Amino acid sequence: MTGFHTYKTCVEACLRCAAICNHCASSCTQEEDVKMMARCIQLDMECAAICYAAAQLMSLGSERAQELCRLCADICEQCGAECGKHQTEHCQECAEMCRKCAEECRRMASVAA
Amino acid sequence: MTGFHTYKTCVEACLRCAAICNHCASSCTQEEDVKMMARCIQLDMECAAICYAAAQLMSLGSERAQELCRLCADICEQCGAECGKHQTEHCQECAEMCRKCAEECRRMASVAA
Amino acid sequence: MTGFHTYKTCVEACLRCAAICNHCASSCTQEEDVKMMARCIQLDMECAAICYAAAQLMSLGSERAQELCRLCADICEQCGAECGKHQTEHCQECAEMCRKCAEECRRMASVAA
Amino acid sequence: MTGFHTYKTCVEACLRCAAICNHCASSCTQEEDVKMMARCIQLDMECAAICYAAAQLMSLGSERAQELCRLCADICEQCGAECGKHQTEHCQECAEMCRKCAEECRRMASVAA
Repeated sequence: MTGFHTYKTCVEACLRCAAICNHCASSCTQEEDVKMMARCIQLDMECAAICYAAAQLMSLGSERAQELCRLCADICEQCGAECGKHQTEHCQECAEMCRKCAEECRRMASVAA
Repeated sequence: MTGFHTYKTCVEACLRCAAICNHCASSCTQEEDVKMMARCIQLDMECAAICYAAAQLMSLGSERAQELCRLCADICEQCGAECGKHQTEHCQECAEMCRKCAEECRRMASVAA
Repeated sequence: MTGFHTYKTCVEACLRCAAICNHCASSCTQEEDVKMMARCIQLDMECAAICYAAAQLMSLGSERAQELCRLCADICEQCGAECGKHQTEHCQECAEMCRKCAEECRRMASVAA
Repeated sequence: MTGFHTYKTCVEACLRCAAICNHCASSCTQEEDVKMMARCIQLDMECAAICYAAAQLMSLGSERAQELCRLCADICEQCGAECGKHQTEHCQECAEMCRKCAEECRRMASVAA
């Protein structure tokens, strides 16, 4: 059956990315200069939401999982680009995770189901 | 600011649709003939996941909310068509809610942001 | 069957509270003084997460829904208290919604299932 | 800062458990005897919802994460016990994951924050 095991690497990337984004958003609120982090917090929240939805559709073996992964890749790239601008450890870690997740989602979206 | 109030009708439709889909899936497992409900349960789970993600992106005022609403409309239509085949009250209610949510999502996706 | 209709008022309060919290968090990141909003953003994110989970367990007719609603009420109260300190419209709206949701969750948690 | 890294093992267990529960629920709907799987589908849906919420609160470094992990452990145990009754591979895998996640959540809930 199509589902978790078919898309394992991508599901795991999405779940980890969601958690890392939540962590980054929360950590950003505790930085000295929160204003500089405003866009990062916003994109972290969007990215966490879409990553978890993508992981759900993949785990459920949905026929629409690829379409969602395509959109998820876009949001991950946008979030990763923003996080990459900041030198805090949580932002750098999040930037790396977002880029990796975007790659996995692109690969998943391009494979024939 | 773009967000909950901009897309209020659509956010509310998505949230209600998610809840009704959860309720329908759970109710389906308690029917005498669960096998007949198998596809309905599957689509209810997918639809609940995507509807909540759409409500989140809209509430967050995300620039990607429209793209997600387009995909959400597709899944709602598919779920509504399946639910519509069954005469149980929860399936009929879910079919109606899915169709309404699909309409709201189509409208939202077609409006210039 | 226990589920959405049994707990309708509380489910609807939780879903709306989740959306309003998402909206408030996002709006807070766009305020002039984001630092002042840091705690509000943090609690909005926590509150949105727990409210949606509570709505899900209630919609699914879960036997554990009451326990989750008790915890949800606590988080809603904490979030509402923080939001209530700020005069921005989104924070005032969120404070009111959190208090209402806390009330609904307390009532739900105190009713024999 | 408290968050993802503090609770890494437990966050990862919760996320994986959520995905495996989604997969199990979907796989159950495709079994020959779906009726026998009805309770398993129901608990899989509840368990996926609570596991993801627990992962979110931990990733956000919430002060309430422990309370939610306690409830999450209860639901994981209930779900694992039900899944353990069925010999299908997805149920056996889910039973094992639920038990492991319950353990992680108990440990997390018992540690002073």
